[in-house]
Amino acid sequence: MTKHVYTFGAGQAEGKANMKNLLGGKGANLAEMNLIGVPVPPGFTITTEVCTMYNEQGQQATFDLIKPEVEAAVALVEQLTETEFGSKENPCLMSVRSGARASMPGMMDTVLNLGMNDDAVEGITKKSGNSRFAWDSYRRFVQMYGDVVMDMKPASKEEIDPFEEIIEELKEEKGIQLDTEFSTDDLKELVARFKAAVKKVTGKDFPTDPWEQLWGAVAAVFGSWNNDRAIYYRRMEQIPDEWGTAVNCQAMVFGNMGSNSGTGVAFTRDAGTGEDIFNGEYLIDAQGEDVVAGIRTPQEITLEGSKRWAKLQGISEEERASKYPSLEEAMPEMYRQLNDTQQKLEDHYSDMQDLEFTIQEGKLWLLQTRNGKRTGAAMVKMAVDMLEEGRIDEKTALKRIEAAKLDELLHPVFDTAAMKSATVLAKGLPASPGAATGQIVFFADEAASYPESVLVRTETSPEDLEGMNIAKGILTARGGMTSHAAVVARGMGKCCVSGAGAVKINYKTRVMTIDGKEYHEGDWISLNGSTGEVYEGKVSTMDPEMSGNFAKIMDLAQKFTRMSVRTNADSPADAQVARDFGAQGIGLCRTEHMFFEGERIKAMREMILAKTEVDRRKALDKLLPYQREDFEGILEAMAGYGVTIRLLDPPLHEFVPHEEANQKDMAKEMGISVEDVKALVDDLHEFNPMLGHRGCRLGNTYPEITEMQARAIIEAAVNLTQKGVDARPEIMVPLIGTVKEFKLQADIIHATAKKVFEEKGAKCDYMVGTMIEIPRAAMTADLVAEHAEFFSFGTNDLTQMTFGYSRDDAGKFLPIYIEKGILKNDPFQVLDQEGVGQVVKIGVEKGRSTKPDLKVGICGEHGGEPSSVMFCDSVGMDYVSCSPYRVPIARVAAAQANLK
Amino acid sequence: MTKHVYTFGAGQAEGKANMKNLLGGKGANLAEMNLIGVPVPPGFTITTEVCTMYNEQGQQATFDLIKPEVEAAVALVEQLTETEFGSKENPCLMSVRSGARASMPGMMDTVLNLGMNDDAVEGITKKSGNSRFAWDSYRRFVQMYGDVVMDMKPASKEEIDPFEEIIEELKEEKGIQLDTEFSTDDLKELVARFKAAVKKVTGKDFPTDPWEQLWGAVAAVFGSWNNDRAIYYRRMEQIPDEWGTAVNCQAMVFGNMGSNSGTGVAFTRDAGTGEDIFNGEYLIDAQGEDVVAGIRTPQEITLEGSKRWAKLQGISEEERASKYPSLEEAMPEMYRQLNDTQQKLEDHYSDMQDLEFTIQEGKLWLLQTRNGKRTGAAMVKMAVDMLEEGRIDEKTALKRIEAAKLDELLHPVFDTAAMKSATVLAKGLPASPGAATGQIVFFADEAASYPESVLVRTETSPEDLEGMNIAKGILTARGGMTSHAAVVARGMGKCCVSGAGAVKINYKTRVMTIDGKEYHEGDWISLNGSTGEVYEGKVSTMDPEMSGNFAKIMDLAQKFTRMSVRTNADSPADAQVARDFGAQGIGLCRTEHMFFEGERIKAMREMILAKTEVDRRKALDKLLPYQREDFEGILEAMAGYGVTIRLLDPPLHEFVPHEEANQKDMAKEMGISVEDVKALVDDLHEFNPMLGHRGCRLGNTYPEITEMQARAIIEAAVNLTQKGVDARPEIMVPLIGTVKEFKLQADIIHATAKKVFEEKGAKCDYMVGTMIEIPRAAMTADLVAEHAEFFSFGTNDLTQMTFGYSRDDAGKFLPIYIEKGILKNDPFQVLDQEGVGQVVKIGVEKGRSTKPDLKVGICGEHGGEPSSVMFCDSVGMDYVSCSPYRVPIARVAAAQANLK
Repeated sequence: MTKHVYTFGAGQAEGKANMKNLLGGKGANLAEMNLIGVPVPPGFTITTEVCTMYNEQGQQATFDLIKPEVEAAVALVEQLTETEFGSKENPCLMSVRSGARASMPGMMDTVLNLGMNDDAVEGITKKSGNSRFAWDSYRRFVQMYGDVVMDMKPASKEEIDPFEEIIEELKEEKGIQLDTEFSTDDLKELVARFKAAVKKVTGKDFPTDPWEQLWGAVAAVFGSWNNDRAIYYRRMEQIPDEWGTAVNCQAMVFGNMGSNSGTGVAFTRDAGTGEDIFNGEYLIDAQGEDVVAGIRTPQEITLEGSKRWAKLQGISEEERASKYPSLEEAMPEMYRQLNDTQQKLEDHYSDMQDLEFTIQEGKLWLLQTRNGKRTGAAMVKMAVDMLEEGRIDEKTALKRIEAAKLDELLHPVFDTAAMKSATVLAKGLPASPGAATGQIVFFADEAASYPESVLVRTETSPEDLEGMNIAKGILTARGGMTSHAAVVARGMGKCCVSGAGAVKINYKTRVMTIDGKEYHEGDWISLNGSTGEVYEGKVSTMDPEMSGNFAKIMDLAQKFTRMSVRTNADSPADAQVARDFGAQGIGLCRTEHMFFEGERIKAMREMILAKTEVDRRKALDKLLPYQREDFEGILEAMAGYGVTIRLLDPPLHEFVPHEEANQKDMAKEMGISVEDVKALVDDLHEFNPMLGHRGCRLGNTYPEITEMQARAIIEAAVNLTQKGVDARPEIMVPLIGTVKEFKLQADIIHATAKKVFEEKGAKCDYMVGTMIEIPRAAMTADLVAEHAEFFSFGTNDLTQMTFGYSRDDAGKFLPIYIEKGILKNDPFQVLDQEGVGQVVKIGVEKGRSTKPDLKVGICGEHGGEPSSVMFCDSVGMDYVSCSPYRVPIARVAAAQANLK
Repeated sequence: MTKHVYTFGAGQAEGKANMKNLLGGKGANLAEMNLIGVPVPPGFTITTEVCTMYNEQGQQATFDLIKPEVEAAVALVEQLTETEFGSKENPCLMSVRSGARASMPGMMDTVLNLGMNDDAVEGITKKSGNSRFAWDSYRRFVQMYGDVVMDMKPASKEEIDPFEEIIEELKEEKGIQLDTEFSTDDLKELVARFKAAVKKVTGKDFPTDPWEQLWGAVAAVFGSWNNDRAIYYRRMEQIPDEWGTAVNCQAMVFGNMGSNSGTGVAFTRDAGTGEDIFNGEYLIDAQGEDVVAGIRTPQEITLEGSKRWAKLQGISEEERASKYPSLEEAMPEMYRQLNDTQQKLEDHYSDMQDLEFTIQEGKLWLLQTRNGKRTGAAMVKMAVDMLEEGRIDEKTALKRIEAAKLDELLHPVFDTAAMKSATVLAKGLPASPGAATGQIVFFADEAASYPESVLVRTETSPEDLEGMNIAKGILTARGGMTSHAAVVARGMGKCCVSGAGAVKINYKTRVMTIDGKEYHEGDWISLNGSTGEVYEGKVSTMDPEMSGNFAKIMDLAQKFTRMSVRTNADSPADAQVARDFGAQGIGLCRTEHMFFEGERIKAMREMILAKTEVDRRKALDKLLPYQREDFEGILEAMAGYGVTIRLLDPPLHEFVPHEEANQKDMAKEMGISVEDVKALVDDLHEFNPMLGHRGCRLGNTYPEITEMQARAIIEAAVNLTQKGVDARPEIMVPLIGTVKEFKLQADIIHATAKKVFEEKGAKCDYMVGTMIEIPRAAMTADLVAEHAEFFSFGTNDLTQMTFGYSRDDAGKFLPIYIEKGILKNDPFQVLDQEGVGQVVKIGVEKGRSTKPDLKVGICGEHGGEPSSVMFCDSVGMDYVSCSPYRVPIARVAAAQANLK
């Protein structure tokens, strides 16, 4: 028979730490603490499976099933605490709390002081000798239970809580200001009025039977799994809906029973820095909620911490010691026990613990322990420290790294204090992490007008590239996490906030308007690329510390990885950054970005304007030396590693100006009429450029473009090889959908290479492969692999086409889709393994079916996202490639994937 | 050992008719004619496999292999004809002709009179007693061989043929005008000069050895498989490159040996009408090329045919009988033999034959027989007649129908004579067959300005629908075979020529310019939707005859089909047309077309302008009665059959005006400013609308739209059911990519249906299913099928996304792709089985894996294309759906698929 209820108490427990899936994190740790001799109030856990049953089969069937087990468990609690549920003499009071597999703090419901009624309050009065305490507990219980279980909520968000309303009324009647001024009789009056209100609003009597109370509370906790804020939190944290929550019922302990009682929270190490310093806060004569409420100032647990705190606050040692003594000073024995316990818990779990404790009349109780949340820096330090302390092995240290959090370590950040006092103007998407402060410019070619500028655009285009590189940060009004601005900015490691809808831009007047307020060119703003916030004025920043621990983690990643990590880089500088981060090769070098500077764009436009192959070749001849030079630089920067160079990909209209002023410039420069420029732009217009004349469709309609690019690459590689540089170009044909498209391009490349080798009398190594980014290419990958030497999955476009989403337009429905749970994640950020992943898998399998040693990688944005990297490992890819600043993240994720 | 050469002659043959793949069509039939006692000059066939070997392994290896067989075969021909290769006394002359599996008339090379040299010409002179004939044959041989084998071509297309140049020179020297005026000596001189020219240009002596001649000719024929025009023809007719051609070498017979010789072509039945009338043309004392050359007027074979011809030409019976006698009159015995032979051949092949014959000095020889090409009407009549004559069975009759050709029978056509004399202004794509003549209008809302109008647009949009329906035909300057204009026109059975690039339109001045010439509103033009030609002025048309034979073929299709055929129809009228053509249900009823007339578009725009759900619902309430009425009409017209109604699919910007004048109208009508209208249009703008906010993405962001449409459908069906009409709505959710998208929409539909049933106290049958048109939907079809009752594959969009092609933009590279052989067909016309087909197959298999009885159909344009229909049958679909006028084609293709 399945067991639904697991008891714990007095050093015994039916559960243990590794039963988190069944008992939830809290329940499993409560059991474990019992087993290792940490004092925990006795209680029991109703499993997460019961929650699932509750949601599927309803309350009646579920409670009928678990009733005997719950009754037995309550009996055990009564026995261990020598109390009795509802007793007038020795009543048993309980807490009922949620506890899911993953921590969801504050999202679900809790009921405290359960078991309280007119009899029990007398028992508590007798036991505590404190009738005010007893009645206050009773009052709190009715209020909490009425709210949580009986749904006594404000009628609308404009109205106040019905219980608070009664409290306010009574205060007025009594002429008092604070809750603490209520007398015991006042509290009795409140209990009476609360119950009457419940009856009036719900039509039901407030339950006096502790059992009825208990079942009501359990039902409320299960039900709260599906309240709006819990659902929202799960979406945010990617917690599956089907996990469910456990319910933990535990004997109450009270920190508010006088000066020998208290309550607090503590961390076994510093969650901000990772230092091995026990720290935390507590309050004497208080309940847990008082620590949070902020009415009283919590005190530090350790003397050292208390002194540091006082110094920061400007409080004298005298005042500190008298008014805010540490627990170490105030209750030395309790402190000793707590310190022993935290040591024991960290030793036991081998990880930094986040504890909750209560001291009831000189006895220490632990109410919770869990692995503590920490900053990226702390995460790295703790993992390395614990490895060096011998607490954990290398694999465990590596697993401790939440790869995505490494991002925090790689970009400049705002000074925390400065950020807190800054005015938030607008909020967009955290498109590229980091912090930027600068003066507003509206045009990319004016980015250099100020020493520190922030480029503000409705959206960016490839023409803006140079300016984006110069600006300190980029703010766009439109576009998502994978808009042009976002992708390019991440590639550059440049701070970017995209899609800030409140931002309206008038290019003519050079004014940005937010909520009616105008900002002009030259005004200072600051961007937080990690939160998406836009601040008014200057906010000071600080550089991140790249400590030696970071390097140690990278070494571990290198040791345990199967896949290698490459970078997406279009310049020698980017390549160098990525190499410093440990990238082993370039997975995607886009050649089109090389066409925008100075004379190049002119030659490119000549090529586009050319009516005949002869004229096109003339223009291409001008581009050849630029390209060759670029490739030499990049191949040299990544010497010894493969450099995947993608041939021209974007549609030609991206190389012509769409704004009238720029069209005039182009006409002048090219010596043609503005009408001709406009006609050209019109002719190049496409309804769906994403699905238009681009990629190898250009190379197949104008083979001379491919020929020029192949020549530039091969000449560059031969030149370097002759200089003794180990150049390894891998020429990649983009956007193929049929094997013939690839074959024709590959034939041109091979023929060109042969010609160059003959001309130069020297050779170089090179490979020819293709990007798999069109569903049809994956479906026919067996045919393609007969001719291609490598595949690189372009999962950006593959996601667009497999979903039928334009990432430039999806902003209109993607947020709603995520909110409604249609999608768990933005598929442009997290690879959709269910759908797109299948296409990738088919592509890899079919490709290897005809070429078993086919080299396979990924070069979409997903290559730097941990869960996507794990997927790439699982389908057997050889490498992932991502933007330089995500290389460390991908390296850790790749190693972790291999450890699984 | 593989046999490479198959001989035939004197009633014996190593091959037979069913060996077409190996011997080519011509070779197989030459063998077969021998076997059934038809007189055929002896010869042999070198197989198509040798051609493949020739192209893969080269000439030397191939000829070494087949040499012994060819020598033995030539020896047999010499023996049967009692001649000798290169003999001075009794020379053997041969023809060398290509012959592929499928007929490729005139595409490949031929050499006649092979074996001729200075010795042979003497032998021929002696045998024929006609030295002029002998030397003329020699002259012709050198000219033909020089051209075909020795590549003596004009130096450029501006220059004339080098042999013709010599002929002209000699004519000038001799002061003569015509070839026939050359004396025997002149012909000798020509032979000498020809040979000298060959030597000069090619540096090679003209070969005198008949064996060298033979191998040269065989090589030329094999080589000509890959000449440009043969490759082009194969693309056009979808003949695989790997088939190769056979080579047929045959003893020469001569129709130009005097008045008892002649040559001709004949058909066993009328290829235009299908009537069982033997017919054909011949010339006395002539060679095959003379019949084609048009210098002499060919005469009719039968007396009856001759009399009919004379009448049409206005020639008196006297003149006819003297100058143009029929073969029946001129050579009664030859006619009797030919008539017997044609009868024998038709009896034998049980199909209409296309014959070539030569009479040499009173002896009849058949040079070729093959199944004759025929018009759609003739095809139908012949199949039915032959079935009724007991020549073929029902299945064979059905297989005789080339489904696509039925199209010819379904649209009005131009009068043939009128069309010949018409001036062709421009050529576009044959987007929708038929003929249309009317006065030019440039705006859809002005289509009714003339009783007969032709709508001329750069491209059309859904706003133009009503006008397109009114116009007699549609001409667009842009857009392909699946552009809006083309798709809508085919659906309407309306003549359309799309993408006529030479057409330039100035909407402001209301002028169309073609090659500099202007055409104004009101000018008459005519469109041939079957050829893509645009004619000047009026060209008279005639209605097609829908004979009883057509119905008989449809009955056969019904008898043998497994799949049913539905139609894509948006109106009761369309539904009725399709029903008359035998459609069993509607596979796609688009609801958006219903939103454009009068008040509807206003309500639709109110809905789009609405800022809140409440306002949206108000506008939707106005649309509800219109929709309900539409659905009642269409469900009633298709009573007893399923009607698949697709919920709103296009992006909202299709419902707002993009032209300034119309924006002003809208502003006025809606009582808002033009700026507001423009802002709305801007806001709705998408970079890639194909991949944007449309389909169920609308229904999921604005669920109230789905609710309204579901209500309209269910209310309509309940109303009809109450009236005793068998209404069967199948509600289809468009553009799903995830199961949750479908589930949320299906939940709304079911909830709405429940509500309507309660309100009305009555029910109706209905189904809820989805369109599979996004690759991801197919990849996750197993999950989708858990909730969907049917799948309909939308292969238009599925092709767009699987290939990554925008069909609106693909015009820039698709033609080049087809020309280069990257694609065999336009994938929007012919379903790409290799790629898109795999996705469809995965979708069907996964869908049926969780719901074995899942109903599956197709509703893309491919549903009316025969090879695609066959594919649908092969993957087990239940039905195909196509535009009304393609229903008969689909029905025949479906039945043929089932017979395979």
